[in-house]
Amino acid sequence: MYDGIVQDLIDELGRLPGVGPKSAQRIAFHIIQTESFDVDRLATILQTVRERVRFCIICGNIGEEERCAICRDPRRVPTAICVVEEAKDVVAIERTREYRGLYHVLGGALNPMQGIGPDQLRVAQLMTRLQDPTVEEVIIATDPNVEGEATATYLIRSLLPLGVRVSRLASGLPVGGDLEFADEMTLGRAFEGRRTVER
Amino acid sequence: MYDGIVQDLIDELGRLPGVGPKSAQRIAFHIIQTESFDVDRLATILQTVRERVRFCIICGNIGEEERCAICRDPRRVPTAICVVEEAKDVVAIERTREYRGLYHVLGGALNPMQGIGPDQLRVAQLMTRLQDPTVEEVIIATDPNVEGEATATYLIRSLLPLGVRVSRLASGLPVGGDLEFADEMTLGRAFEGRRTVER
Repeated sequence: MYDGIVQDLIDELGRLPGVGPKSAQRIAFHIIQTESFDVDRLATILQTVRERVRFCIICGNIGEEERCAICRDPRRVPTAICVVEEAKDVVAIERTREYRGLYHVLGGALNPMQGIGPDQLRVAQLMTRLQDPTVEEVIIATDPNVEGEATATYLIRSLLPLGVRVSRLASGLPVGGDLEFADEMTLGRAFEGRRTVER
Repeated sequence: MYDGIVQDLIDELGRLPGVGPKSAQRIAFHIIQTESFDVDRLATILQTVRERVRFCIICGNIGEEERCAICRDPRRVPTAICVVEEAKDVVAIERTREYRGLYHVLGGALNPMQGIGPDQLRVAQLMTRLQDPTVEEVIIATDPNVEGEATATYLIRSLLPLGVRVSRLASGLPVGGDLEFADEMTLGRAFEGRRTVER
């Protein structure tokens, strides 16, 4: 419906998650019509992000160096590892200020239907980290939905034989949702009330 | 909460209309984590859009040349001008295939609270176009909300003394919404049933 480049922009914006054709059109028009919108800045940031952002070689979190800001921070408590699905879950937990340990980002959840098994997640890397006797507790903080629960169950079965303390966030998280959308209070309390999984 | 460039991307995406902080974060993570997402392509398109897109010197529609694709098209009926608020309304009407005349894009609607009067819209340019006796009918297709109605009333008062036929889209458009969100059927019928404004 539009002349070339405008349609290209709408198509490209429509590829972003949660952006339907109408939103893509609205965003495109905003960019075109708002003189003060700095397209060069957005373009540069997009390219810089791809160049600079790296996944931490230890925990899989995102950052701009070989090791992420949390793994580099000597004030973090190295005896606990909190296992999450995505890097954005790290941010959600950090916001609660309830937790001072380290993280492990799986990169998703088990989903056999989509061909995502343990080998597609950073499970082996977690096992390697647990060979360090410094780690006393693994806190499982996967999303409280079907895939997250399946992932938690799988991890519990794999971790308990290692003799490490395994805990899960307290229920209190609204079931069926994504961890990242929980408010800070709910998430903070879920952290406080985490329970140890009995062998 | 994030290391530099990731936060920059989230902030910049959050400036787009309809993109809140959570959506901005989700889009940013998608861009970072989806290897196949072509950031260079999006970056290039953003910059090309700003360089290439122009407003038609005749009707104010967007395009890549001095005159838009509709104003350049010799098959369009030059006796009718349909007045809309935004270029995206042109696209919505084109989709109905009910209309073969020309357009005039005002660039918004009257909104005294925001300091938008007739001089901030392309009203004078419309008056100039009407000096051409070819134009027999002006169809007012502003949004069916408060600002759109006020704009329609203002235009009717300005246009009727010129002796041109003035019509409005039939009611049938859902009131209180934006024209661009009407489905094609509703919009097409509103076009068919447009009524002439009596002097």
